[in-house]
Amino acid sequence: MGDFIFVSGTSSRRSDNSIAGVDIIDEMGTKRLNAETQTREVLNNIDKTLKTVGASIKDVVDVSSFLVNMNDFAGYNKAYAEFFDKETGPTRTTVAVHQLPHPDLVVEIKVTAYKKND
Amino acid sequence: MGDFIFVSGTSSRRSDNSIAGVDIIDEMGTKRLNAETQTREVLNNIDKTLKTVGASIKDVVDVSSFLVNMNDFAGYNKAYAEFFDKETGPTRTTVAVHQLPHPDLVVEIKVTAYKKND
Amino acid sequence: MGDFIFVSGTSSRRSDNSIAGVDIIDEMGTKRLNAETQTREVLNNIDKTLKTVGASIKDVVDVSSFLVNMNDFAGYNKAYAEFFDKETGPTRTTVAVHQLPHPDLVVEIKVTAYKKND
Amino acid sequence: MGDFIFVSGTSSRRSDNSIAGVDIIDEMGTKRLNAETQTREVLNNIDKTLKTVGASIKDVVDVSSFLVNMNDFAGYNKAYAEFFDKETGPTRTTVAVHQLPHPDLVVEIKVTAYKKND
Amino acid sequence: MGDFIFVSGTSSRRSDNSIAGVDIIDEMGTKRLNAETQTREVLNNIDKTLKTVGASIKDVVDVSSFLVNMNDFAGYNKAYAEFFDKETGPTRTTVAVHQLPHPDLVVEIKVTAYKKND
Amino acid sequence: MGDFIFVSGTSSRRSDNSIAGVDIIDEMGTKRLNAETQTREVLNNIDKTLKTVGASIKDVVDVSSFLVNMNDFAGYNKAYAEFFDKETGPTRTTVAVHQLPHPDLVVEIKVTAYKKND
Repeated sequence: MGDFIFVSGTSSRRSDNSIAGVDIIDEMGTKRLNAETQTREVLNNIDKTLKTVGASIKDVVDVSSFLVNMNDFAGYNKAYAEFFDKETGPTRTTVAVHQLPHPDLVVEIKVTAYKKND
Repeated sequence: MGDFIFVSGTSSRRSDNSIAGVDIIDEMGTKRLNAETQTREVLNNIDKTLKTVGASIKDVVDVSSFLVNMNDFAGYNKAYAEFFDKETGPTRTTVAVHQLPHPDLVVEIKVTAYKKND
Repeated sequence: MGDFIFVSGTSSRRSDNSIAGVDIIDEMGTKRLNAETQTREVLNNIDKTLKTVGASIKDVVDVSSFLVNMNDFAGYNKAYAEFFDKETGPTRTTVAVHQLPHPDLVVEIKVTAYKKND
Repeated sequence: MGDFIFVSGTSSRRSDNSIAGVDIIDEMGTKRLNAETQTREVLNNIDKTLKTVGASIKDVVDVSSFLVNMNDFAGYNKAYAEFFDKETGPTRTTVAVHQLPHPDLVVEIKVTAYKKND
Repeated sequence: MGDFIFVSGTSSRRSDNSIAGVDIIDEMGTKRLNAETQTREVLNNIDKTLKTVGASIKDVVDVSSFLVNMNDFAGYNKAYAEFFDKETGPTRTTVAVHQLPHPDLVVEIKVTAYKKND
Repeated sequence: MGDFIFVSGTSSRRSDNSIAGVDIIDEMGTKRLNAETQTREVLNNIDKTLKTVGASIKDVVDVSSFLVNMNDFAGYNKAYAEFFDKETGPTRTTVAVHQLPHPDLVVEIKVTAYKKND
């Protein structure tokens, strides 16, 4: 749209419909949801989506991150820093919401990218 | 702004200030809040707002939906599908927040539209 | 980006890292978090940020406000009205989320501004 | 304990580990969680538990109900009225919490019963 | 039950069904919900209920308080201290839940009293 | 009261007012809140409180646990199992609430004990 590219809110769901960052930790099926792993997968998924339209995660200019628990901030932030530089990276807004669309998700990210059409 | 049109977060409030999708279900005044009805009203309200500036819901390119309970997803999604096609429709981000501005609201939607000025 | 300016989600944190609108109200250290004071500081902070890139709060075209409690709406709205006119001001979306990045924050605001490059 | 019987917080989980009141409503696997059905199952489960110690749901004197969404109140209250009379029934406290132990649960109930030992 | 008296979760609803601590603060109908006023009314209501069975708030031995926002703690605690002494008063548990049964309520309290039958 | 002992909702706050299970994990002061560590401290604190009145954690008959995030269930449950046997231990109710009295707390537990007076 103009030179802007919108991307739908993206989770750590993989193409086979499984969700990254969901570890079964005992024989009862207790899950541990890993915010760092999920954030890395989310940002890789966003990069793949942007590449289908000739852009990449380097073109992201604005990020809105939805966690479900602020105690996940550290893990989320660590993975985030692998993709974006604090000084030169996109603007960012992080809030913790009540629920995401699937109970195993602990982070969902929405981005806007900008890429000049020639 | 440029060719983009921003719309304020929109609820199912009608012009007479009543709220669509609020059913009184017994003589005690117990309410049942209907996410499907509310979503339909929200999207009709957005369409009306866009028409005042020469656009319509067909020009929407990005949608952020705020529910208050993910268990309302099915009804919300059903009404949504009456307005937008999954393949060709706008990008979408859906989260459940803690509260909306009025306690009878179960969905609020914010959209960005894009319409080339001639 | 084009003529749009994105601003990161902004809180009432001051440059010395303290947070405006946090009042200690007894000798036990009980805090009262003031939504009106915080909103005023947030919008002043946004104005300062925009001025570093040659714009100001008058150029804001879209506002997303994240409260943590809808009972703070009145105070938030009062401070907001000191910066923006209801009729001519930016579009606005207000929701209450589960948590903001710091427990003393009761409001965080994300804006988009628009300023034609000459 | 004395003449009091405590019962652990009880959900609509059946003995085969499936959960009552979880309806799959389309081919995508979208779930609708039914508060009325779940409440009925919860109270039947509590009755069964009490019978294992020689009491029954008729001996319940205090009820704490945990919903996840107050919009479920009507369905919950309807099923509740099949088990307890408003005038002569137990004291009751109903709140909506943030999360229950399983994401498909919309109601969990904790009761105390009283039965005089002979 | 034995010498214990259970009381249903109690709000600041008055006998005429209006709710104490709900102030309309402008001509738009904006409400400010007052935790201190509500807490005082709740505890007075509990005292009245206990008096109907020959006890009073002085016989309360255990308190569970449900707020909807921890920022209301100061006002709640101030009113609470008018009824109970910190050293000699009942045990107490205070949490903030997601929702109470009516959107205008900011505090609900459940108590257990103990009064020796002669 | 009779033979019952009520204990106030107990957190992992230590006698010097610091909170167990709060780890600073980087030079920015980012905190990681550890549910397993906090639960262990909570139950030790409850044991100490009960010992001041001639009982101990072995006399606990009913437990209400308040987490702030169900993703903490695994760590909470692990520490819990060090104190109580699943078959012979107290009844238990676990919910996740919106907020606990201090933002660094991720678990608070309320217990009732029973000890026959001679």
